[in-house]
Amino acid sequence: MKNENTDRFTQRNNDTAYDNPSFTGSAVTISMAGDKNSSNHFLVLHEDSHKSSFIYTLKQILPWTKNRIRKGCTKKMLYRRLPILNWLPNYNLSWAAGDLIAGITVGLTLIPQGLAYYSIIGLPPEYGLYSSFLGSFIYTAFGSCKDVPFGPSALNALLAAEAIKGRGPEHAILLSFLSGLIQIFMGLFGLGFIIDFVSGPVSSGFTSAVALIIVTSQVKDILGIKTKGGSFLQSWMSIINEIPNTRTWDAVMGISCIVLLLIMKTIGSQKLGTEDEKPSVLKKVFNNLTWVIGTGRNAILVIICGFIGYVYCSRGEPPFLVIGTVPQGLPAFKAPPFGFTSEKNGTLVQVSFFEMVYNLGSGIIIVPMVGILENIAICKAFANGQPVDATQELIAIGLCNVGNSFVQGYPGTGALGRSAVNNASGVKTTFGGIYTGLLVIGALLFFTPYFYYIPNAVLGAVIIAATVFMVELKVVKPMWRSKKSCFIIFIVTLIACLVLHLEVGILVGIGINILLILYHAARPKIKVEQLKTTGGIDYLLLTPDRCLIFPSVDYVRNIVTKYSIRQEVPVVIDCSHIYGADFTAATVIETLIQNFSSRDQVLFFYNLKPSVCTVFEGLSPKGFVVYYNDNDLDELLNKYVKGENVKMKTIEVFKC
Amino acid sequence: MKNENTDRFTQRNNDTAYDNPSFTGSAVTISMAGDKNSSNHFLVLHEDSHKSSFIYTLKQILPWTKNRIRKGCTKKMLYRRLPILNWLPNYNLSWAAGDLIAGITVGLTLIPQGLAYYSIIGLPPEYGLYSSFLGSFIYTAFGSCKDVPFGPSALNALLAAEAIKGRGPEHAILLSFLSGLIQIFMGLFGLGFIIDFVSGPVSSGFTSAVALIIVTSQVKDILGIKTKGGSFLQSWMSIINEIPNTRTWDAVMGISCIVLLLIMKTIGSQKLGTEDEKPSVLKKVFNNLTWVIGTGRNAILVIICGFIGYVYCSRGEPPFLVIGTVPQGLPAFKAPPFGFTSEKNGTLVQVSFFEMVYNLGSGIIIVPMVGILENIAICKAFANGQPVDATQELIAIGLCNVGNSFVQGYPGTGALGRSAVNNASGVKTTFGGIYTGLLVIGALLFFTPYFYYIPNAVLGAVIIAATVFMVELKVVKPMWRSKKSCFIIFIVTLIACLVLHLEVGILVGIGINILLILYHAARPKIKVEQLKTTGGIDYLLLTPDRCLIFPSVDYVRNIVTKYSIRQEVPVVIDCSHIYGADFTAATVIETLIQNFSSRDQVLFFYNLKPSVCTVFEGLSPKGFVVYYNDNDLDELLNKYVKGENVKMKTIEVFKC
Repeated sequence: MKNENTDRFTQRNNDTAYDNPSFTGSAVTISMAGDKNSSNHFLVLHEDSHKSSFIYTLKQILPWTKNRIRKGCTKKMLYRRLPILNWLPNYNLSWAAGDLIAGITVGLTLIPQGLAYYSIIGLPPEYGLYSSFLGSFIYTAFGSCKDVPFGPSALNALLAAEAIKGRGPEHAILLSFLSGLIQIFMGLFGLGFIIDFVSGPVSSGFTSAVALIIVTSQVKDILGIKTKGGSFLQSWMSIINEIPNTRTWDAVMGISCIVLLLIMKTIGSQKLGTEDEKPSVLKKVFNNLTWVIGTGRNAILVIICGFIGYVYCSRGEPPFLVIGTVPQGLPAFKAPPFGFTSEKNGTLVQVSFFEMVYNLGSGIIIVPMVGILENIAICKAFANGQPVDATQELIAIGLCNVGNSFVQGYPGTGALGRSAVNNASGVKTTFGGIYTGLLVIGALLFFTPYFYYIPNAVLGAVIIAATVFMVELKVVKPMWRSKKSCFIIFIVTLIACLVLHLEVGILVGIGINILLILYHAARPKIKVEQLKTTGGIDYLLLTPDRCLIFPSVDYVRNIVTKYSIRQEVPVVIDCSHIYGADFTAATVIETLIQNFSSRDQVLFFYNLKPSVCTVFEGLSPKGFVVYYNDNDLDELLNKYVKGENVKMKTIEVFKC
Repeated sequence: MKNENTDRFTQRNNDTAYDNPSFTGSAVTISMAGDKNSSNHFLVLHEDSHKSSFIYTLKQILPWTKNRIRKGCTKKMLYRRLPILNWLPNYNLSWAAGDLIAGITVGLTLIPQGLAYYSIIGLPPEYGLYSSFLGSFIYTAFGSCKDVPFGPSALNALLAAEAIKGRGPEHAILLSFLSGLIQIFMGLFGLGFIIDFVSGPVSSGFTSAVALIIVTSQVKDILGIKTKGGSFLQSWMSIINEIPNTRTWDAVMGISCIVLLLIMKTIGSQKLGTEDEKPSVLKKVFNNLTWVIGTGRNAILVIICGFIGYVYCSRGEPPFLVIGTVPQGLPAFKAPPFGFTSEKNGTLVQVSFFEMVYNLGSGIIIVPMVGILENIAICKAFANGQPVDATQELIAIGLCNVGNSFVQGYPGTGALGRSAVNNASGVKTTFGGIYTGLLVIGALLFFTPYFYYIPNAVLGAVIIAATVFMVELKVVKPMWRSKKSCFIIFIVTLIACLVLHLEVGILVGIGINILLILYHAARPKIKVEQLKTTGGIDYLLLTPDRCLIFPSVDYVRNIVTKYSIRQEVPVVIDCSHIYGADFTAATVIETLIQNFSSRDQVLFFYNLKPSVCTVFEGLSPKGFVVYYNDNDLDELLNKYVKGENVKMKTIEVFKC
């Protein structure tokens, strides 16, 4: 693979009329000695070609725009933007069966979750259900990942709660609308790449912090106490202070529910027989049973506890807290509230749209961003190596949120727990969402009277048993082994999210990560070797390992200067790894060449990419010598070292 | 130079007990074929070695700290921190002559400049002189660059003016003190690298904008009018509106002074005879005369115009504006004002230290940063290829500013114009600063009564004639030819500085530059080639050109997946250019390996650096195959492609 630079240059040769006889020679020499001299067919070269002419660039803009528009209107793009067109024509009975089972199972998870999240977001329980049906329908048509069931997520609910700060449903509904708009905007303008800047460690730290905060927020429901204080530490202080006021029966029910849920989860993962053999009827029944217990555990437990609640309530005041009245029927279909009238101390106060936006603050950015981050992470987890279409997911989730805001829903997204259920239930297409949505509608129309009896503690247990696994302890060890700096970023993000605000925490993590990238760019590694040519001339070879751009170039120059002054032999800079350069680099290289020339020391550049060469040549540096063939070095050195030194300032040989 | 990877690995081999028989084979093969097999002596390898053991790291911290402290207390460090120790013992008569001439010439430039900057910073003229002597003395002892004469600069005066917003000398003096402290702090903690993040184009755009703003601010003095409005555009609108009120004689004097200064500058660059020949007496006299006219032009013109002013003043009211009374004598030596009492509408108001700091705002950061930026740029311009000690310059300039604040000076730094005069006058050491300082003291003690008669217009002309050359028109063409994106950054910074605030403008420039670095990191270029091994097996070779870190790794994975699914042949990722990776990359690589394995496609990694390999291995990915020798590829492919596919998930060969 020694000729890979050669290949690149051969390709560029065709591309930008770059021609160098010595170089072609080198290409021949090496590919004859090499191991892949036949079939050097180039598929594609992901590399900008630096066209030197500006007019050329201008000329290209028009056809590019035309092409872009044409591309945007093709049938292929239609199929990409409406993924339902891909699978609906081939929809068959086997798929329908898979989707039906998965859709209903997801619905049975979604309904208790939707109810439970009321205590995270701080809105009445029915809003969780309002957020769960229209989005499912919309995602069926626009979603590109079959395993994502759209709906409220614990993470999104927590962030929405921080944005609305207990201000009531109007703000949550407007937040859903605006989040959706921002997601659609990001999708249409290809801004999905922004989430690439949230690294694994930052994402893990943030998610773990969210999980810990959610668990903390649910402990009070389990214990039946009232706590004060917003931050993680304050909440725990308050919980510890309030422990004497624990409502015994809430605590008993809550803790036993958590234990039961964890046991049911374990049962769910038990299977008799191996994958390959044909299972006996008994084994099949057992496996189906464990599957039902595992995937339906939330619904089963909520129904049982709801029944217990009903029994106690019918005898009088129950010993534990219950949800209470959940209004029956579907929400009205109407525009989200762009301003509303609220009562404050007996007088009516008009809250304008801009006031609402001001109140929501940074939540308008954080909620959609984190929503899509969560969703894309799920898509990747279930993509099986297929590329994930982030743009399409942004548009789909955005449309779902905008839709939700018309039926008084709060912001939602895909959630990992439900996606796992969906996948395990054998979902085939996004059509499962239709059944989920219908089930939620059915619940709103017919079952709300029964929700009254559901104990708060069981909903708290549902949330705790699900979110406690979001604390990503399993990444700690590999992260530590793999890269210490990533582990530190994980810990810093986690602590910053817990001690400071969640938004601040994730920004701290991203900030540190970006500083690391900048440090990488600013401090390249330079290998310094003292070598001898075949002709026996000593020379110094310096090899920077990455691109030369403004923050690094002075550092590189200092190292080059330091070693070359100390050694006083010809210096060669091996540019094989320099994939890019900027004007600042060009000016510094020019100064470097001048300095070498003024102390009569030889400076050559080896294997400089033509695109980088163009950048350096913009300043027309005198005595700028580049060579591409190892064999040229001796010839060049003989020329310069032995007697022809004086002319060095004017001669330029082997230039690209 | 084909064996450069080999060399690196051989070195690492010794370093981290990295051993690979196939690899060693490769090293032998190549270095025998290569051209630099003898004298492979490694001087140094600027590369972190990833020690896998944490305890090892801990054990290293103690000696490192000890070493650091010992290093900080050596004689070498003392000589570095007090550069005067280097040259004072060898000081001789020839140096003294050079320094004397240069010091006096610089003094004759500095005095008119110091007076002139009063109209930029908005303080009485004497403060310019107060800022000009103690700093010169301090820099003599601590400065590392002989060509830098410390004193007020137009750029720094403008930024200080924006920070103090016409609030009077107390704020300016405190700003000098705080700027100095920040510079010393940055020096002591090695934060000088921060200025590396100001690229050439941003610096050029900023300086050009400053020059344009300064010229604009002086036009009113030349025309003798009063203008309103802070921004560049507002100022010009105001100037155009006020043109009918131009004071004729101010304008005549100002414009003729500018013309005269430019002519004298041109005369100064004229020389008779060539460098080599011995000049005749006539030529020598001529050359000396042009030199005096060129370097002393400011002083000459100010003295002449001062005399004209004196003549007119002695006859009554002069037809042009003059500076007026400049208090005689040296400033009192006292601590800078940490709070003061001011009169406002007849009542005394106490202004506290914190209020002053609040008033100065971002100026406390911007003034020292830009000051040191200007100073380092000058050092580099005159360094002649020697490395510039940014840390020492930070400490020196910081001490000068702190010192200045004790004699009621405002923040200063080196200035390009004076440095050029200093250099052209043959300065040998920083001792020239002593003469400059003494000259300023002399001026304060004896000449202030004469400064009364200096016309405002001539000082305006001095500033305009100097700053107009700071507009960096000469970089436009090479920048455009070298790299278009740099040119765009230059223009954007320039416009942002003019239209918005100066601070905002430079931050916009730096911000765009950093976004470009991030984009670079996020979107590597990947070469895709379809090749044949010597054994005739088709395979796909993908070569990413830079490191694999979180913002890029999903992008790389998508491209790898896309092409490998399309081609269905074994895939090799050439990692020669991958100099770094993080945990996010490791997780994605693990998923990639899993996906390839699940569709029975072969994936090999070629030439992966051991440090990167360690990062990937942290996750213990199954079926992770790395090879270093071209010849191994056929063997490996034969093993995997022909029949042994099934075992692929468990076998790991040629692993690092």
